[in-house]
Amino acid sequence: MRAEIISVGTELLLGEIIDTNAAFLSQELAALGIELYHRTTVGDNEQRLKQALIEALARADLVVTSGGLGPTADDLTKETVAAVLGLPLVLDRPSLLWIKEYFARMNKEMTVNNQKQAMIPAGGEALPNANGTAPGVLICKGEKVVVCLPGPPRELIPMFRSYVLPYLRTKSRGVIHSRVLRLCGVGESELVEEIADLLTDQTNPTLAPLASEGELRLRITARAQSEREAEALIGELEAKLRARLGHWIYGTDDDTLEAVVVKLLRTRGETLAVAESCTGGLLANRITDVPGASAVLERGLVTYSNRAKEELLQVPAAVIVAHGAVSGEVARYMAEGVRMSAGTDWGIGITGIAGPGGGSREKPVGLVYYALVGPGVNLVQKVHWSGDRVKIKRRTTQAVLDLLRRTLLATEA
Amino acid sequence: MRAEIISVGTELLLGEIIDTNAAFLSQELAALGIELYHRTTVGDNEQRLKQALIEALARADLVVTSGGLGPTADDLTKETVAAVLGLPLVLDRPSLLWIKEYFARMNKEMTVNNQKQAMIPAGGEALPNANGTAPGVLICKGEKVVVCLPGPPRELIPMFRSYVLPYLRTKSRGVIHSRVLRLCGVGESELVEEIADLLTDQTNPTLAPLASEGELRLRITARAQSEREAEALIGELEAKLRARLGHWIYGTDDDTLEAVVVKLLRTRGETLAVAESCTGGLLANRITDVPGASAVLERGLVTYSNRAKEELLQVPAAVIVAHGAVSGEVARYMAEGVRMSAGTDWGIGITGIAGPGGGSREKPVGLVYYALVGPGVNLVQKVHWSGDRVKIKRRTTQAVLDLLRRTLLATEA
Repeated sequence: MRAEIISVGTELLLGEIIDTNAAFLSQELAALGIELYHRTTVGDNEQRLKQALIEALARADLVVTSGGLGPTADDLTKETVAAVLGLPLVLDRPSLLWIKEYFARMNKEMTVNNQKQAMIPAGGEALPNANGTAPGVLICKGEKVVVCLPGPPRELIPMFRSYVLPYLRTKSRGVIHSRVLRLCGVGESELVEEIADLLTDQTNPTLAPLASEGELRLRITARAQSEREAEALIGELEAKLRARLGHWIYGTDDDTLEAVVVKLLRTRGETLAVAESCTGGLLANRITDVPGASAVLERGLVTYSNRAKEELLQVPAAVIVAHGAVSGEVARYMAEGVRMSAGTDWGIGITGIAGPGGGSREKPVGLVYYALVGPGVNLVQKVHWSGDRVKIKRRTTQAVLDLLRRTLLATEA
Repeated sequence: MRAEIISVGTELLLGEIIDTNAAFLSQELAALGIELYHRTTVGDNEQRLKQALIEALARADLVVTSGGLGPTADDLTKETVAAVLGLPLVLDRPSLLWIKEYFARMNKEMTVNNQKQAMIPAGGEALPNANGTAPGVLICKGEKVVVCLPGPPRELIPMFRSYVLPYLRTKSRGVIHSRVLRLCGVGESELVEEIADLLTDQTNPTLAPLASEGELRLRITARAQSEREAEALIGELEAKLRARLGHWIYGTDDDTLEAVVVKLLRTRGETLAVAESCTGGLLANRITDVPGASAVLERGLVTYSNRAKEELLQVPAAVIVAHGAVSGEVARYMAEGVRMSAGTDWGIGITGIAGPGGGSREKPVGLVYYALVGPGVNLVQKVHWSGDRVKIKRRTTQAVLDLLRRTLLATEA
């Protein structure tokens, strides 16, 4: 089965709303094994919506629209779908009753406009809206299926799950499953070279590399007759990838690097304290985004000033004078100082120049030193990032979390 | 001028990524007075991308693509645009040099794949990518203009602003200017009621409310023959809005609450120290995202454990026992403790339950106390947020920054 999505709404074309519905519907269709090759967005304009519907129906078996079911004259999705399919609009009495009850419950006057919302293309099935007045509609004509859903995500999502999903499940043959492997510490081109043969050879499962901030993802997608078969196909390719890339893979699907690190530390019953200068609290913030982080992170110190480094971390003033606040020596003292004062198993120290000011020829913007100390571990690393302040902060925390992860995996608790 | 946007990427059609670029580009085009009637999304498929380009070029003068500029064989936007326009691909030497330097700076090996990124359609103008390897490209052929931008928003947005926007400004007749007023501390429905008359009456300038995490924006957009005229129209409506909503407006356009607070403190020559429990470093992180924050933030302490609260902030153990770590008393001790130890003008203390665990009947998830102390100021506030851990952290820091901003405005330096 092949589908298209048409998002309807001038507010989308003005950029006032981000179209999260399109992503939601795309995910759901992919999970059902329904192919999606096009998505289109048009405004509240009859002629352009009509044209988009005609094109989509020519290419696909299923067309899902979102938006344009409201009570105003602007809202013309059902009217246009009816016209394209050559069907009259008829009153759906259960929908009218529902809308009347909705207004009664809200203690509001129902307007004549709202009656329009109870009109649906003849032969269509009205889809109740648990969170609003506009019913959706599902229309089968010949080999084609058109589903019209309301625009607000809190109306669209439950309506899709309650009525459209069960219908589509009966229609689609086979399933599509996918798994995402998350990697850190490797660039996209290096990764692609490493698995060039697998990238070109694969048709089922398919393999796609995706780059994002400071990390890479590899998506494995399999089509099969059953879930079990799809999982087996994914498992086979995943094993090959892990054999080659295992040292870079930190997790799967929705894992985050911080969640993986918190989990490792919790499993080992170990604790962590961090001292940050240039990352300014981002490392502590990422760690504390993870539920249960309080069992792991004893404290985090943002020691921007030299005075704070000296007072809170016992970094000797002489070391700062001799090597500068941005130096491997100071990073190490910071890690040791915070570990000592917090009495934790692990300590991290970070110092660098996030910019845009503060750089020099010897110590340019983007230069960062970070240190990790723990049982039998005493590491200092130097990096030089490009990018702006926010990117330098983000990349540094990514590198630090990955160093901690690798170190934990390489040492025994 | 009429434009279309084509978003390219199989990951979009699988719903793995929400297409925020499309909304960003739509907003920017609207602000330039460029009409946008269609947006299309296709996967990494040459045939379908080609078809989409042909259709878009038939309907519009300007086609903007996002995505598909990466180093892999999947990435074929430039190749397909070149084919559709009947142009050969040629090597752009400055881009190649930039990519080489990029890899040298990162201390990484440049692969053959990355050379492909320096190829652009003949006659096109390469657009430098400040945050990645893939240059964009702007191609004029006859009456048509095609702009190809990279997929990652961190690369697309600055590239659009630096190179595409100035070009399009020279192209569009008349001007459209807009200004965004940023508000904090008010809900959307309250705001809409307050300015209901202005929202319905306006045609030029138009007025649109936009909601996002913990804040609201009001966008004023004016069309005129000259910048000066547009600015005058905006200024008139802005004055009306400020008269009614001034106490909620913290900034305009790209201002952030943290940048406004840092600027206020810098102007006054005052310093700040923060002690965070449930926000786990997010407040310090937001403040240190602002260039120049080091002149303002002396230190930030993430005191997750009671021990850290006692040792670093001198919160008496008896107070924690008597009132609990999540209490107004502890928030106040934290603010005073960090202010005292750092010797700053202002101190902030935050304690609460970010969840998902740790809540109780008396102290449910989402309960947060925060304190602000400074010259003649000693405030403690209690809030109870709904939402998940990340949302609770975000909303708390938003409320704290707004309290500091209002307090600074209400007191003399």
